[in-house]
Amino acid sequence: MKRLNIGVIGAGRIGTVHTETIVRSVPEAQVVAIVDVNIAAAKELAERNMVKSYSADYRTITQNPDIDAVIICSPTDVHALHATVAAKAGKHIFCEKPIALDLDTIRRVLQTVEQSRVKFMVGFNRRFDPNFRKVKDMVVQGKVGEPHIVKITSRDPAPPPAEYVAVSGGMFLDMTIHDFDMARFIVGDEVEEVFAIGAVKVDPAIGKAGDIDTAVITLVFRNGALGIIDNSRQAVYGYDQRVEVFGSGGMVKVDNNAPDTHDYYARDGVHSSLPLNFFMDRYIEAYASEMREFCRVVACDEPVSVGGKDGLLSVAIGLAAKKSLETHRPVKVSDILAGTA
Amino acid sequence: MKRLNIGVIGAGRIGTVHTETIVRSVPEAQVVAIVDVNIAAAKELAERNMVKSYSADYRTITQNPDIDAVIICSPTDVHALHATVAAKAGKHIFCEKPIALDLDTIRRVLQTVEQSRVKFMVGFNRRFDPNFRKVKDMVVQGKVGEPHIVKITSRDPAPPPAEYVAVSGGMFLDMTIHDFDMARFIVGDEVEEVFAIGAVKVDPAIGKAGDIDTAVITLVFRNGALGIIDNSRQAVYGYDQRVEVFGSGGMVKVDNNAPDTHDYYARDGVHSSLPLNFFMDRYIEAYASEMREFCRVVACDEPVSVGGKDGLLSVAIGLAAKKSLETHRPVKVSDILAGTA
Amino acid sequence: MKRLNIGVIGAGRIGTVHTETIVRSVPEAQVVAIVDVNIAAAKELAERNMVKSYSADYRTITQNPDIDAVIICSPTDVHALHATVAAKAGKHIFCEKPIALDLDTIRRVLQTVEQSRVKFMVGFNRRFDPNFRKVKDMVVQGKVGEPHIVKITSRDPAPPPAEYVAVSGGMFLDMTIHDFDMARFIVGDEVEEVFAIGAVKVDPAIGKAGDIDTAVITLVFRNGALGIIDNSRQAVYGYDQRVEVFGSGGMVKVDNNAPDTHDYYARDGVHSSLPLNFFMDRYIEAYASEMREFCRVVACDEPVSVGGKDGLLSVAIGLAAKKSLETHRPVKVSDILAGTA
Amino acid sequence: MKRLNIGVIGAGRIGTVHTETIVRSVPEAQVVAIVDVNIAAAKELAERNMVKSYSADYRTITQNPDIDAVIICSPTDVHALHATVAAKAGKHIFCEKPIALDLDTIRRVLQTVEQSRVKFMVGFNRRFDPNFRKVKDMVVQGKVGEPHIVKITSRDPAPPPAEYVAVSGGMFLDMTIHDFDMARFIVGDEVEEVFAIGAVKVDPAIGKAGDIDTAVITLVFRNGALGIIDNSRQAVYGYDQRVEVFGSGGMVKVDNNAPDTHDYYARDGVHSSLPLNFFMDRYIEAYASEMREFCRVVACDEPVSVGGKDGLLSVAIGLAAKKSLETHRPVKVSDILAGTA
Repeated sequence: MKRLNIGVIGAGRIGTVHTETIVRSVPEAQVVAIVDVNIAAAKELAERNMVKSYSADYRTITQNPDIDAVIICSPTDVHALHATVAAKAGKHIFCEKPIALDLDTIRRVLQTVEQSRVKFMVGFNRRFDPNFRKVKDMVVQGKVGEPHIVKITSRDPAPPPAEYVAVSGGMFLDMTIHDFDMARFIVGDEVEEVFAIGAVKVDPAIGKAGDIDTAVITLVFRNGALGIIDNSRQAVYGYDQRVEVFGSGGMVKVDNNAPDTHDYYARDGVHSSLPLNFFMDRYIEAYASEMREFCRVVACDEPVSVGGKDGLLSVAIGLAAKKSLETHRPVKVSDILAGTA
Repeated sequence: MKRLNIGVIGAGRIGTVHTETIVRSVPEAQVVAIVDVNIAAAKELAERNMVKSYSADYRTITQNPDIDAVIICSPTDVHALHATVAAKAGKHIFCEKPIALDLDTIRRVLQTVEQSRVKFMVGFNRRFDPNFRKVKDMVVQGKVGEPHIVKITSRDPAPPPAEYVAVSGGMFLDMTIHDFDMARFIVGDEVEEVFAIGAVKVDPAIGKAGDIDTAVITLVFRNGALGIIDNSRQAVYGYDQRVEVFGSGGMVKVDNNAPDTHDYYARDGVHSSLPLNFFMDRYIEAYASEMREFCRVVACDEPVSVGGKDGLLSVAIGLAAKKSLETHRPVKVSDILAGTA
Repeated sequence: MKRLNIGVIGAGRIGTVHTETIVRSVPEAQVVAIVDVNIAAAKELAERNMVKSYSADYRTITQNPDIDAVIICSPTDVHALHATVAAKAGKHIFCEKPIALDLDTIRRVLQTVEQSRVKFMVGFNRRFDPNFRKVKDMVVQGKVGEPHIVKITSRDPAPPPAEYVAVSGGMFLDMTIHDFDMARFIVGDEVEEVFAIGAVKVDPAIGKAGDIDTAVITLVFRNGALGIIDNSRQAVYGYDQRVEVFGSGGMVKVDNNAPDTHDYYARDGVHSSLPLNFFMDRYIEAYASEMREFCRVVACDEPVSVGGKDGLLSVAIGLAAKKSLETHRPVKVSDILAGTA
Repeated sequence: MKRLNIGVIGAGRIGTVHTETIVRSVPEAQVVAIVDVNIAAAKELAERNMVKSYSADYRTITQNPDIDAVIICSPTDVHALHATVAAKAGKHIFCEKPIALDLDTIRRVLQTVEQSRVKFMVGFNRRFDPNFRKVKDMVVQGKVGEPHIVKITSRDPAPPPAEYVAVSGGMFLDMTIHDFDMARFIVGDEVEEVFAIGAVKVDPAIGKAGDIDTAVITLVFRNGALGIIDNSRQAVYGYDQRVEVFGSGGMVKVDNNAPDTHDYYARDGVHSSLPLNFFMDRYIEAYASEMREFCRVVACDEPVSVGGKDGLLSVAIGLAAKKSLETHRPVKVSDILAGTA
């Protein structure tokens, strides 16, 4: 098996994560080129990881015949462009979420991908987290019986700047999209209907930017299961990511990870460590598993476990949640998909 | 301080709980009379607890000048009758929830109570549970800052018989009513709006009786806090009663109680005890605290901590949830209270 | 089954515990007489629990033909006297630990008890704690296989006054005696050898009184299992009582009980409740089970589960530990029993 | 700062761990040569990690002027030879524990090291584990006050083959040596006296080889603290590594790490994951921190945190434990060091 040559488009935070993950944890692949419109960022990331080539032009990757696959970590508004060009050039694609903020664009990308017969994987890293994977496995094994209620808690340690919020597509497409994907992943069925309530509790600037920072979303699945997601842009105690599934056969839940297992018994109480505060620490194993899967999928021509349909439907559910919040009523995902909501 | 004389109306399961709680844990009071239309039940309960008098006629209690207070544990449909007669006779009243299944009846009872100037306490025992009390105290102390999200999980170990379901007023008024009261108690503010989704997942007979057995309810509070309740009539692993409050200053959550603290490490995993399976075991301390408060309130002429308004509003929220489930839209509690929903 | 009449000798802390336990939780028995050389204490305890008779003379109990059984809660130095007289009077006996501080006295008591054919139960209340009972049950069921290592942590929340220490028989006979009994109970076999190290870490006055306040004791059992006990007279975080058994088939351990299950996530860590701080709170269920067993044993002529032999051997192990500490070498329990150590 | 060139002597299990740790997690260093008398093993490890040179002769490392430091992972009986030659050649040394099985040899090695003025670090990897590091930090910060009792549980998932046992130096020098070092590390003071009891409980072949497989060791520290270590060669539920420190100000304890945080509530109990079963999984972070420290120490000429004295004293305590087991009495470490035990 020859070593996979990979080009990374986007040298920001998540581009760095994927580059370093491949360098450290995926011996079957190597990053051979890094691109960023900010050439200094591309250079810095390339040099730090002994990657030979860097550039400001993404076509140096898509036109390079030695490159097998691209990892798209550019801003959301150029995901579709980069994915389309890469697909036409016959490169396999790993694309960060969301593919785009509207369904038409996503559909066009997926059509091109299909015609080009390249692999297309979407960056829902949490599916690869050992905790959530365990929940999924137990559901698949029938340990909880028929799922009746799935509960997802997803709270960030600190809100993004208001200027980011303005271009993010809104909390549901930027943050909750991970939870929508998780809900589908865990239940193993499709969301039919969404009802969302929200509030501005963390930062008034987020409200001024037209978004919310606190939300509760309920889901109804095709198989009749009920879902709950609760979100906040700021948990002062850190990154809070938990899942619980309740069903006819029992319940499984996973808690956060902490940096150590200590319990300190003092005069004033028992104290222990906060959850890991940073998404990179929490999901370090998930990023490695995700990249290993992508490389294996490409190298061995295996099916992708999280692909275009997942990218499309998570956005559709996000748009349904947005519509529900605006209209203050439950919204059917099928109406969003049909454009009739 | 003279010893309080108490009459118990209703010798069923909850009447037994309250009688034995007073005998064992409230030395400042004594049960002097027990009434049940099933005279054998009254006799049996009286004799087992060395209570001198028993009868099938509740007026032997309301007309007994030696009795200071009554505990109403009769079926829901006669709560109002018993409370009204007792109030008019000047007896202080502890009334099991719900006071009635409709708001008009409840309002008439509360009016009589007010005119009679007797104490009136409603049996929301969970407010006296050490776990939930701890959450409440921490919220009041400002430990979680401004509450943003409150989450209540409330699942029974086994569903009631379908014939009971038919006369219960439905899951929201029979079971979730405890959670509606808990939500108000914890947040310390009123629920403005309710949205409910539900399903029949546990027992088709419950569906045939026109009820549901699985539900997710979202709440919006006056202060902008968001609430989530999830219910099931059957958790195969036992009685599951948890609360979590998330706010600007942190999060507090309480877990179930177990009969012991053991962890068993075997070849196939780590195993520990299930939650206490029976409401009596789980809430034994709560029932004792509740009865001690009632007796102290009567004896020392203190204000009641959980009274008529709490009994009224929990039913109003339950009716809003019912309406929401029927109409598949969010319902305002004020519309229920105004009769305009 | 007639109601058992019980006399309590000693109206101090533990006499109060047993009296109130019977009044509240053992309907099959009643306390009919309380004796204490401090007549005021006897009167106060009797009146508070509606016990008809009280006295300063223990013979008012032993000579009362209506009394079936006595509970001996007097100071250790008169346990033997009270037990002997009671036995000769044909009263069944529950005796607090230790029976006496020397083996000869204990043997004489046990001989009298045997000749009198009365029941004799020793107050090792911890055997009735749900946590330790669970460990015992799992060992008996073979869940841990052959026990290899048993570990007992036993730390008091605060040291006793130095004047008490002076007459207590020393930490091993006053405090660790519970752990010696627990070790025998859990392993289900006899201790053959003891090695003890100790220190004065908590209170120099305890050292001046000739005792220690911190200790580690290792045990070798007849079946080859190894045991560890660690003790302190002062855990600033409360009453710390844990047991762990490790064997060929796995490990089971039990933790402390807390007043509630809350976890509070704040900026500076996760915080939860300390263990129950007071022996009465921790062992309230154990005391009730213990008294119910004693009353059942007497009423139904059943065998005692924790009797004279247990009282004798726990003291013998304590004396071995004392000898080990003095001589700085391991000491055989058989040498203590034979008087040849 | 130039990149450090490292040679690894010994391509077995631990040599592989250190080699791969440097390749993956220590960008400031590179492994340039691997030696093993089994040349096939050296070749395989070198090729898998893109190390240029391999050999069967350790002098190809010690005589290579381009190599800055050596990592000694050879069998214990040649640690001293390899360390001595490397020191004389001016190579900095990381040496796996134990340095040797007798004190004279260790002293000779340390003398040579001192004369050669090279860095010398001993492989007590557990000091770098985040859990134990947390305990150490809290002790240093005074969080537990004066340490009174330290408890170490250390149990392997499966016993080594009897043929390994025969040349291992015995359980105390092979396995417990880690715990002796941990005890000194945590308490921050020296062990004065040791008492050991042991048994053959896991595998009779270990007994035939003259060793034990189950042990309890008590320690007395110079500052008066008491220590307990319990060991087993086989915990059927996995690798069990816990530490607890109790002191005048409180208690801190750390538990095992698990692969995930799931709790599964089923009809028959609550179930969760076993501890990580393999030392490599449990200590993966510790090995990385350890190697990073070694490389930093060498590159920046910093003091070693775990050095020759630690290597010497852990063996001395192990020899004291051995002597104690043989003579069935407490043994002073100073007598072992003076050769008078």
